[in-house]
Amino acid sequence: MTQIAFLLYDDMTALDAVGPYEVLARLPGADVRFVAARPGPIQTDVGMVLVADSGFDDVPAPDIIVVPGGPGTMPALADAATVDWLRQAHATSRWTTSACTGSLLLGAAGALAGKQATSHWILLDQLREFGAEPVAERVVVQGKVITAAGVSAGIDMALMLAAKEAGEDEARALQLTIEYDPQPPFDSGSLEKADEATRLRATQHMVPEESAAV
Amino acid sequence: MTQIAFLLYDDMTALDAVGPYEVLARLPGADVRFVAARPGPIQTDVGMVLVADSGFDDVPAPDIIVVPGGPGTMPALADAATVDWLRQAHATSRWTTSACTGSLLLGAAGALAGKQATSHWILLDQLREFGAEPVAERVVVQGKVITAAGVSAGIDMALMLAAKEAGEDEARALQLTIEYDPQPPFDSGSLEKADEATRLRATQHMVPEESAAV
Repeated sequence: MTQIAFLLYDDMTALDAVGPYEVLARLPGADVRFVAARPGPIQTDVGMVLVADSGFDDVPAPDIIVVPGGPGTMPALADAATVDWLRQAHATSRWTTSACTGSLLLGAAGALAGKQATSHWILLDQLREFGAEPVAERVVVQGKVITAAGVSAGIDMALMLAAKEAGEDEARALQLTIEYDPQPPFDSGSLEKADEATRLRATQHMVPEESAAV
Repeated sequence: MTQIAFLLYDDMTALDAVGPYEVLARLPGADVRFVAARPGPIQTDVGMVLVADSGFDDVPAPDIIVVPGGPGTMPALADAATVDWLRQAHATSRWTTSACTGSLLLGAAGALAGKQATSHWILLDQLREFGAEPVAERVVVQGKVITAAGVSAGIDMALMLAAKEAGEDEARALQLTIEYDPQPPFDSGSLEKADEATRLRATQHMVPEESAAV
């Protein structure tokens, strides 16, 4: 069995975890755990409630770690129990991964020192605080540490990881299983592609106070 | 406020709902409800537990309906309370939508008669049973009914719907918010693109018994 731990915390973004989960939970031998400081309901950022089935002590040494991001990342960074669990789990993990601002948590746990890493564009530069070199790429692989860009990028990251874990044929089948043949109606999914008005409007979605000050 | 109802049921696929949710819940004035036959925890198909906050009687007339799919679709089709709620909610909805095999539930509720519709490729042909014309497209719009292909296609559907509800500028900003600039590592996300071995392996993932019989 391959134990795969998804860290859950209040005010996280659900898709950051659910995207990778839909790929990785379908790997042969996957033993999926949803881990939080306290098992039970977790209130995510825009309404959905997920359920953590395990506490930190229940899953001390997962094979694969997936850390989501979201507005709750900042409070989670200040939570010693969360960061300690991540540091210890990372010490023995086969893969330590993140989506979105989850990479800041990897940084706080010491997993990014001297490494390139990515994050949601809105907080990409903050990675420097943890000794990482921010890279505006969708998925960044550095040894056993894999970071993905904002929210939906976790799906691409998980398919790449699925190939490393179970081979490309398996990863291709998982891509077909989740019918991942993306056809977004617009082409504004990264800072490079979006215009300034779109960037401002998206920033307002995420940090209304900051945008008001601009 | 725009009331948006996500139907939840046991053995559904989490991403079918979470993909559209991450877009639609961020629309201005969104009032998001997770609706099930019984409020409380919902066990999805490969391990994750979601929480329904409302019963059918609590949300009789949502503005937007989103119906996910998954292995639980078949049992849900046989559940009169689910199909009745959907039929009645559809009678007054502004938009009735689905991801993946959720379109079969729309069909059972009478929402697809004489219409084109899509679904997960593995059950696309079953749409005929409900008087629909199956179309192998990622998103199909027929009046107020919008169906999406398998699992991840709900994200594309929701961005299209966001543009109809709040304008293209808003939809572009939401795409940037979820950093949806997809870069799948492979190109096997649809039947058209995947080879036969990939199709067989994916089928085995989803219906092991059927594949064994092939």
